[in-house]
Amino acid sequence: MTASAGVFDKGLERNAANFVPLSPLSFLKRTASVHPGLPSVVHEGRRFTWGETYARCRRLASALVRSGIGKNDVVAAMLPNIPAMYEAHFGVPMAGAVLNTLNTRLDPEAIAFMLDHGGARVLLVDPEFASTVAKALPLMQGPKPYVIDVDDAAFEGGGRVGAVEYEAFLTTGDPEFVWEGPSDEWDAIALNYTSGTTGNPKGVVYHHRGAYLNATSNVLAAGIPPHPVYLWTLPMFHCNGWCFPWTIAALAGVNICLRRVEATKIFSLIAMEGVTHMCGAPIVYNMLINAPDAPDARAGRPVIGLIAGAAPPMAVIAGAEKIGIDIHHVYGLTEVYGPASVCARQPEWAGKSIDERARLNRRQGVPYHLQEAVTVMDPDTMQEVPADGETMGEIMFRGNIVMKGYLKNPKATAEAFAGGWYHTGDLAVRDPDGYVMIKDRSKDIIISGGENISSVEVEDVLFKHPAVLLAAVVAKPDPKWGEVPCAFIELKDGASATEREIIDYCKQHLAGFKTPKAVVFGEIPKTSTGKLQKFILRQRVGSAGAITA
Amino acid sequence: MTASAGVFDKGLERNAANFVPLSPLSFLKRTASVHPGLPSVVHEGRRFTWGETYARCRRLASALVRSGIGKNDVVAAMLPNIPAMYEAHFGVPMAGAVLNTLNTRLDPEAIAFMLDHGGARVLLVDPEFASTVAKALPLMQGPKPYVIDVDDAAFEGGGRVGAVEYEAFLTTGDPEFVWEGPSDEWDAIALNYTSGTTGNPKGVVYHHRGAYLNATSNVLAAGIPPHPVYLWTLPMFHCNGWCFPWTIAALAGVNICLRRVEATKIFSLIAMEGVTHMCGAPIVYNMLINAPDAPDARAGRPVIGLIAGAAPPMAVIAGAEKIGIDIHHVYGLTEVYGPASVCARQPEWAGKSIDERARLNRRQGVPYHLQEAVTVMDPDTMQEVPADGETMGEIMFRGNIVMKGYLKNPKATAEAFAGGWYHTGDLAVRDPDGYVMIKDRSKDIIISGGENISSVEVEDVLFKHPAVLLAAVVAKPDPKWGEVPCAFIELKDGASATEREIIDYCKQHLAGFKTPKAVVFGEIPKTSTGKLQKFILRQRVGSAGAITA
Repeated sequence: MTASAGVFDKGLERNAANFVPLSPLSFLKRTASVHPGLPSVVHEGRRFTWGETYARCRRLASALVRSGIGKNDVVAAMLPNIPAMYEAHFGVPMAGAVLNTLNTRLDPEAIAFMLDHGGARVLLVDPEFASTVAKALPLMQGPKPYVIDVDDAAFEGGGRVGAVEYEAFLTTGDPEFVWEGPSDEWDAIALNYTSGTTGNPKGVVYHHRGAYLNATSNVLAAGIPPHPVYLWTLPMFHCNGWCFPWTIAALAGVNICLRRVEATKIFSLIAMEGVTHMCGAPIVYNMLINAPDAPDARAGRPVIGLIAGAAPPMAVIAGAEKIGIDIHHVYGLTEVYGPASVCARQPEWAGKSIDERARLNRRQGVPYHLQEAVTVMDPDTMQEVPADGETMGEIMFRGNIVMKGYLKNPKATAEAFAGGWYHTGDLAVRDPDGYVMIKDRSKDIIISGGENISSVEVEDVLFKHPAVLLAAVVAKPDPKWGEVPCAFIELKDGASATEREIIDYCKQHLAGFKTPKAVVFGEIPKTSTGKLQKFILRQRVGSAGAITA
Repeated sequence: MTASAGVFDKGLERNAANFVPLSPLSFLKRTASVHPGLPSVVHEGRRFTWGETYARCRRLASALVRSGIGKNDVVAAMLPNIPAMYEAHFGVPMAGAVLNTLNTRLDPEAIAFMLDHGGARVLLVDPEFASTVAKALPLMQGPKPYVIDVDDAAFEGGGRVGAVEYEAFLTTGDPEFVWEGPSDEWDAIALNYTSGTTGNPKGVVYHHRGAYLNATSNVLAAGIPPHPVYLWTLPMFHCNGWCFPWTIAALAGVNICLRRVEATKIFSLIAMEGVTHMCGAPIVYNMLINAPDAPDARAGRPVIGLIAGAAPPMAVIAGAEKIGIDIHHVYGLTEVYGPASVCARQPEWAGKSIDERARLNRRQGVPYHLQEAVTVMDPDTMQEVPADGETMGEIMFRGNIVMKGYLKNPKATAEAFAGGWYHTGDLAVRDPDGYVMIKDRSKDIIISGGENISSVEVEDVLFKHPAVLLAAVVAKPDPKWGEVPCAFIELKDGASATEREIIDYCKQHLAGFKTPKAVVFGEIPKTSTGKLQKFILRQRVGSAGAITA
């Protein structure tokens, strides 16, 4: 038998009827057409419908085009989770431009670097961050962006720094603007800078295809039904809110905006708006669990909460369940559009104890439905480590939910993609069921007397101590052992503990060499997305890793 | 402001880490890895897990490759909904080959035509259809395929016509076979012949990209959660079971096989296996509704039933709800991978009467989430008709869920894609809410005294008559009016009616010119997928349209 001679290709090429570049902009167009009257975005007293949101996004795109913005121009946003931030996720790429959401907690130097590096032409600014931007602009070396202030009647204070207000800018645009999707689904849609604890931040470039597929894959990962009510506890500046702006548009859900992560406000919105889904870092859930007004799990149907951003302590996963949040654990990095793996639940887990469920569910798991692969490999040999729960390697991703690469950084791009896989820099094992279980960032591992200690494992024990609110463990230089674990602890309100008590507690639950040799009490520095900033803690203990980490 | 000079493309090309051709084969690989022990396929006494199904599919692919099958070779299947048919949906494309599922109710001449036209190299045959195949093979003009018999212990009778039995063939394959996905997501995955009432059937070619996207879009259309239990009431030979073999793999659900659509068997499997989802043509649901042992809607949680294949009568949509089937109405054709539009529910419909819900829900609706567009256009001007519920035009699709084209038929392909849209040949209006509402196949419309009569509208009235089980209305030549409606009616068991009664009933509900002028009682000829074969009825009444239709 021989292969057919091209009959399945000849005359069967792509054409306008059967091929359209994948783009999440299609989701908004469809939902505005199918459900124009359903609620789209809610922010304090403001409520929009999908018809209105689409018209506003088209106005934004049109106004940008009239301002001279076109393909691959960068539009930056220094905004909290407000309607304009949501609209930017559609209006900016509708103009052919690339959305660069800025981490609102960064300092003026970092902002200036990003505006220069990305070459932002336009910058949307919230009054709360006007002073940061006012300081950042003079630090820029290249041409400055055209600045648009986004007023918010629900916010008091702050200032203006721009040439025009957002609503006035929108009026210069056409609500019937005929936009074009990307000419190629590989075209850039967003630019997201990594937190950059090692040198300058890197600009991660997303394409329309990946944004489309990750937004869709979110639905499969958490089994989200049509018309979810989604609470914006996760910053939209963080991996484009893990692509949920596009997911919620696809599902014709409701976006409940949230300027600030605050327990009382969140519980109130959950009850008032009937929130069904939310996302966040472990610290967000930890705050809710420990809030004095946390509801009982039996108060109503659970909220589905996606958690990612760091290895979540077991106490957080179990604790969330107790306050009525059903945790779905996902894992990823900026380079893979936020989460691109999920700790897929096995039906038999339902019969297990809450602690056992938490232990199983805290793992990084398996690929997203629409991601090709996640695994753990030896980065030297590029061989998968055995699924023995012990052999450590580096977590690697491969598939369509992986960035285009780093902007203007071919060296870092080539390193990240060496051997045909994206290298995360996270160290992990493969459990016997094939699930990936993170052990540490490669720079967070502690090597004591030649033995590897997973800081995550030690933190897990600390989190179980009744007085501990937050814990971070880093390597402290030691003349005898090379490194020893040092614990930083934030105590719960009103709770107390001594260094001795903490160390004794750890000794009961950990091998001797893994037990922290020092305990430091006080507030732990965090990134704006709630990650504990271990590189600062390492600096405090004089760790060698502190210089590059 | 000027556009950036390519910084978002240079050095950011596709590579092995960030680009993998979309293929539904990825779903099986992922699910077999994540849920190897969960049930995959159930057929009578046989139960497979996902690990087993994946190994069997790899064996099949490997055995095919060892037989000399390679890229773009056609493997045909003359099989009912049994495990081998499910496995063929993965094993065949894993070998790089193209799956050509044959309609098992076709006659030997039609089968011979398809085997010749597609150039099938291998043919899988079920004993029930061995005699048809035995007659078809000598009718072929080209080289004959290698025939594999697929025995079924649960089926009595039939025969063998092949060189080897399927299980023996599988043993020649490697369960660890390392398969490669398509080198291009535009590569062919399946070949499906249209029913071909006009001349020779046309071979519709599907690509991996479209199969992947439609399989995913099915999930969004019906809000299917993880691990559905799916009953195979829809033939897998029909548009690859509307791509549900791939959908169920993506969701790690259970495939409940079904050789024959039979009410008692279906009700029994729904109860025993805990069926959650099914698909079918209106005639399947109609049979269930009218079965003497139909359950009460209150018997348990409803089964989600996707319905497509013809404009479903209101009585079927409303009736299904009464027996505990929650109908989701989708619409499409072979050329768009089965359904590619959905009658998306509006939340406010829930408060309406069952009849009103049925009226709203029977429309063809709006695009699938991952389809770009469906609309109604004047095929001459290619302008969208106004959304007035009255102006008739042709339903057109555009997007990624549209075929590559017709095999070895560039003329038909060009016609189908004229003006950058796929032309369905179905006539419809756009309702004021933008939903597409089918009126007729263009060849089914009746023109009486210059007025258009929608056969669907007349049939809808007939279906409401208490004695009517099935109804089909066609044009009958008339010396005065040109054409007049003629009704063909199948009565319910034990029911009776006269021509006079039927005509009087119609007069109460229809304009005079739309009322059938003749009524014929008796069994109505159907296609294997349950479509009423109007071209045969037209022949009986001597309609001019009968020759080409």
